[in-house]
Amino acid sequence: MDIPRITSRKNPLIRAAAQLLSSPGERESRREFLCEGARLCEDAARSGVEIRVCFFTQSAREKYPRYLAPVLERAQEAFLIEDHVAALLSDTRSPQGVFCVCKWLPALGEGVIGFAPARPCLVLENLQDPGNLGTILRTAEALGVYKVFLSGGCDPMSPKVLRASMGAVFRLGLVREPSVGRLCGLLKEHGYALHAAVPDSGAKDVTEIDFTKGVHGVLIGNEGGGLTEEACRLCDDKVTIPMGGRAESLNAAAAATILLWELRRGAAEG
Amino acid sequence: MDIPRITSRKNPLIRAAAQLLSSPGERESRREFLCEGARLCEDAARSGVEIRVCFFTQSAREKYPRYLAPVLERAQEAFLIEDHVAALLSDTRSPQGVFCVCKWLPALGEGVIGFAPARPCLVLENLQDPGNLGTILRTAEALGVYKVFLSGGCDPMSPKVLRASMGAVFRLGLVREPSVGRLCGLLKEHGYALHAAVPDSGAKDVTEIDFTKGVHGVLIGNEGGGLTEEACRLCDDKVTIPMGGRAESLNAAAAATILLWELRRGAAEG
Repeated sequence: MDIPRITSRKNPLIRAAAQLLSSPGERESRREFLCEGARLCEDAARSGVEIRVCFFTQSAREKYPRYLAPVLERAQEAFLIEDHVAALLSDTRSPQGVFCVCKWLPALGEGVIGFAPARPCLVLENLQDPGNLGTILRTAEALGVYKVFLSGGCDPMSPKVLRASMGAVFRLGLVREPSVGRLCGLLKEHGYALHAAVPDSGAKDVTEIDFTKGVHGVLIGNEGGGLTEEACRLCDDKVTIPMGGRAESLNAAAAATILLWELRRGAAEG
Repeated sequence: MDIPRITSRKNPLIRAAAQLLSSPGERESRREFLCEGARLCEDAARSGVEIRVCFFTQSAREKYPRYLAPVLERAQEAFLIEDHVAALLSDTRSPQGVFCVCKWLPALGEGVIGFAPARPCLVLENLQDPGNLGTILRTAEALGVYKVFLSGGCDPMSPKVLRASMGAVFRLGLVREPSVGRLCGLLKEHGYALHAAVPDSGAKDVTEIDFTKGVHGVLIGNEGGGLTEEACRLCDDKVTIPMGGRAESLNAAAAATILLWELRRGAAEG
């Protein structure tokens, strides 16, 4: 296969891709994101994500032919790049040398809620830490494809989120809805019982909620500030994870893991 | 208070402290570790950890007087250091300028198992990722002070583990026992039922185990390779977390969170 080469860091395609790496605003306005890594780019390709451009190094071509094949099959354009050019696109210490410029997932940002069939869902509001957000998405997928809604300022297309999610971002059918009010309103219209997760020992113990009946949604808020007042007010109740130790709280990903697990246990038994 | 100053990066106390930051072998052979951060050093002081030396910058003195006070009260020596000296001791991008050289926790490395009363326990074997290890320790503490055993190559005193654990390392009563065989033998002598956590759909579903009766221990292995064969053989059974999605597996911290939660639910109900 004869692939065109890019040898300059000033190449306009490279500069445009590098902007996607560093700028959330650029991702948002162009509705594109940059995906890095042999495995993650393959995940994107196999999940049906639209791949506009693939960049890869000669050593990646030799090292990762199996991962690259499905990516190159779907990529609209592909370029061989030199290592010093790859460094400009990388967010990691040891770049594998495989990058894709992808189109945003269709479900994202459209504000559309589709539910069929009704299943337990998770609403994440203003999560800031990309490692937490990615881990929660990975866990949600591993525990069985919940519907996940992102509200407020969550940015699922940042390089760290993509990486920590192990590609779950591509497969979960994420829905983004900036307004938590609109989102909760729609969920309630669809019969969801909504639970606000709070680190407050006065709230209901999560083990006391009967997740086996009805259809449930759990809301998790920002790592530092928790859920907004609006989100709490729109929920049917507040739930918490009882803690016995001296630690102040679980981290956001650990709390989300337990809540997802309880939701899943209920749905499996219900 | 008149505090001696250190202005040179070549000061022998600073060089010795910097070695503790970077070298696991140095921590092991000197039986000391370096703790960084106002809050974490305060945690160490309040938890009764022996503080041999405290180093702090002038700006830390102004910014964190409440955290520093209990640390300085317990520290055997204290020095004001300049910012460029502090940079040598820091593992973070924005150092707070507070550091302690601490003596290893007495429970660690002694190979002693003390159980009174018998409670659910967690055995971590060869965990490599410090973020995972720290998060698991934090979760274990938050969910109610399990006995946590570290087997094989876990290094709980690395700067990243200390940070991710939010000080749980100081409070958990960790026990380190390099030999998983010796550890499992002792646990079984004390009546523990031992469960090997594996990502294997043929293993027992964790929800099918009755944690309300008897006393249970769960073993979790290395992120990449899982538990050693020896550890699996010494356990009574293999347990797994049923997964419904397309993801290959939960990450080690998420899996540990669910297992700890199930152990805790059982112990609370039992």
